[in-house]
Amino acid sequence: MVKKVIKTIRRYSMFERKDKVLVCVSGGPDSVCLLHILNSLKEYLRIKISVAHFNHKLRRESDAEENFVRALSKDLGFAFYTEYWKEKPSANIQKEARRVRYSFFLKTVKEIGAERIALGHNLNDSAETVLFHIIRGERPVGICPKREEEGVQIVRPLIEIERAEIEEYLKAYGIDYCIDHTNLEPLYTRNKIRLEVLPELEKLNPDILRALVKVAKVSERERDFLHREAERADVKGEKGISIEKLKSLHPALSAHILKREGMNFSQIEEVLSMLNKKRFWKVDLGNGRFAQREGNSLVLS
Amino acid sequence: MVKKVIKTIRRYSMFERKDKVLVCVSGGPDSVCLLHILNSLKEYLRIKISVAHFNHKLRRESDAEENFVRALSKDLGFAFYTEYWKEKPSANIQKEARRVRYSFFLKTVKEIGAERIALGHNLNDSAETVLFHIIRGERPVGICPKREEEGVQIVRPLIEIERAEIEEYLKAYGIDYCIDHTNLEPLYTRNKIRLEVLPELEKLNPDILRALVKVAKVSERERDFLHREAERADVKGEKGISIEKLKSLHPALSAHILKREGMNFSQIEEVLSMLNKKRFWKVDLGNGRFAQREGNSLVLS
Repeated sequence: MVKKVIKTIRRYSMFERKDKVLVCVSGGPDSVCLLHILNSLKEYLRIKISVAHFNHKLRRESDAEENFVRALSKDLGFAFYTEYWKEKPSANIQKEARRVRYSFFLKTVKEIGAERIALGHNLNDSAETVLFHIIRGERPVGICPKREEEGVQIVRPLIEIERAEIEEYLKAYGIDYCIDHTNLEPLYTRNKIRLEVLPELEKLNPDILRALVKVAKVSERERDFLHREAERADVKGEKGISIEKLKSLHPALSAHILKREGMNFSQIEEVLSMLNKKRFWKVDLGNGRFAQREGNSLVLS
Repeated sequence: MVKKVIKTIRRYSMFERKDKVLVCVSGGPDSVCLLHILNSLKEYLRIKISVAHFNHKLRRESDAEENFVRALSKDLGFAFYTEYWKEKPSANIQKEARRVRYSFFLKTVKEIGAERIALGHNLNDSAETVLFHIIRGERPVGICPKREEEGVQIVRPLIEIERAEIEEYLKAYGIDYCIDHTNLEPLYTRNKIRLEVLPELEKLNPDILRALVKVAKVSERERDFLHREAERADVKGEKGISIEKLKSLHPALSAHILKREGMNFSQIEEVLSMLNKKRFWKVDLGNGRFAQREGNSLVLS
């Protein structure tokens, strides 16, 4: 497994020599495994590791988990940074938890002068994300192996490793971890996907995780291509978007441009079908917003 | 439901006035429903209907089904064309059945001087096809509402109608049909998708059929865009494909070009990762085929 992780790290150029890396550890199997593996590779990769843990204080076990990660970091000789959630919102708790957690990680990485954040997401997480999007009728996208946020590289060295491999690794090395309480996730759908949909799909394709991630990679790459082409296409009109220019583009590209303006699939279809109409038209985008023809322009309000 | 069918017919310009339409009827619920609906719309659409039935002679019920469709056509006053499968192959029976069936339909449509072939596929068929591809790690594509083959337009007026709506319609009008024996389909996977995967997904999104078809539509449109851009991109090199030209393209586009050369996902990834290497390299494409560097060209053999 370690060899596979090295391959992933190389493929995505996740680390550079002398990088200071902040490893984010919840205490669950994935992040504990990540910390152990990066620890075993720290000389090879020539990276310097620190550990961050965000205590959401949402469950009875929260403080025990913080203590577990603190003790683990001490054992391995890594600096440990933690913070707890002070002001919890009444709604959107999962989304907000994610937001404050990431903002703590980004703040910490800057404070300690580190260059990278490492997270423990695995192949199953990515495949589940792909399905999650498909089920909602959205573009199949997975979890990004490496991306930049606020000038910080966020990397996921376990993104090509199956959950089962991680569990085996932990067992083989007798590594302790906290039991994963996933109640920070949008439980119902995620758990259904994990426990019912994916096992069913696995019967039809034993390599379903990689199949889903493959579908996503092709789609993500094409989205990136559309982004670039959309940037290059100048569709500015007298008022808003020039209808003539929009019509001259391939529908995939004009759809992508409209999507970036915040329209959903059926609104895009409706606007595209209107482009050839000379008379006045208006499409309701919801929330008091409209797309309408004004002269030769498409104006969004 | 008839209104929805009219909407679909309009959206895809499926028929023109005075079209002669060959409706392909297996005797199952979908095609029988299609025939009844087109019959009720024939004056409105100003189309002339004939019926074709291909008898695979693969099951006990095959002849009874042929007779059923013949009698139905006679009742409705439509010309009826049929043929049976004489020389059956020993392998690939499902794929071959499809091939001979379509070739009979295409032959018949030309013989009788008709312009269109109408088929009974519904929204569920399309959504199942999307899932079928995703499970295999392929681009999410559904069933085409309208496409041309050998100069003949093949249209599917029920493609936006759910299977349940078709069943309701048949029940409401007391229309007889043959029970659908799906043993001409690649049974295991299709049935699993239909009976186990889709109902599970429907719990997560009641509108799952349309969600899947939406994912496919976006992807199909983007594939079409890539096709066009690939045509425009001149990548011809001294020997095969110019490595410099291929490298200058966006990876989505170069991947698409390599896909059209018959490579699969991992082969494409490997070749793309090789493009920057100056030394000689060779990628095994299987079946004795190779992709390799020759000077500044990528040569496929």
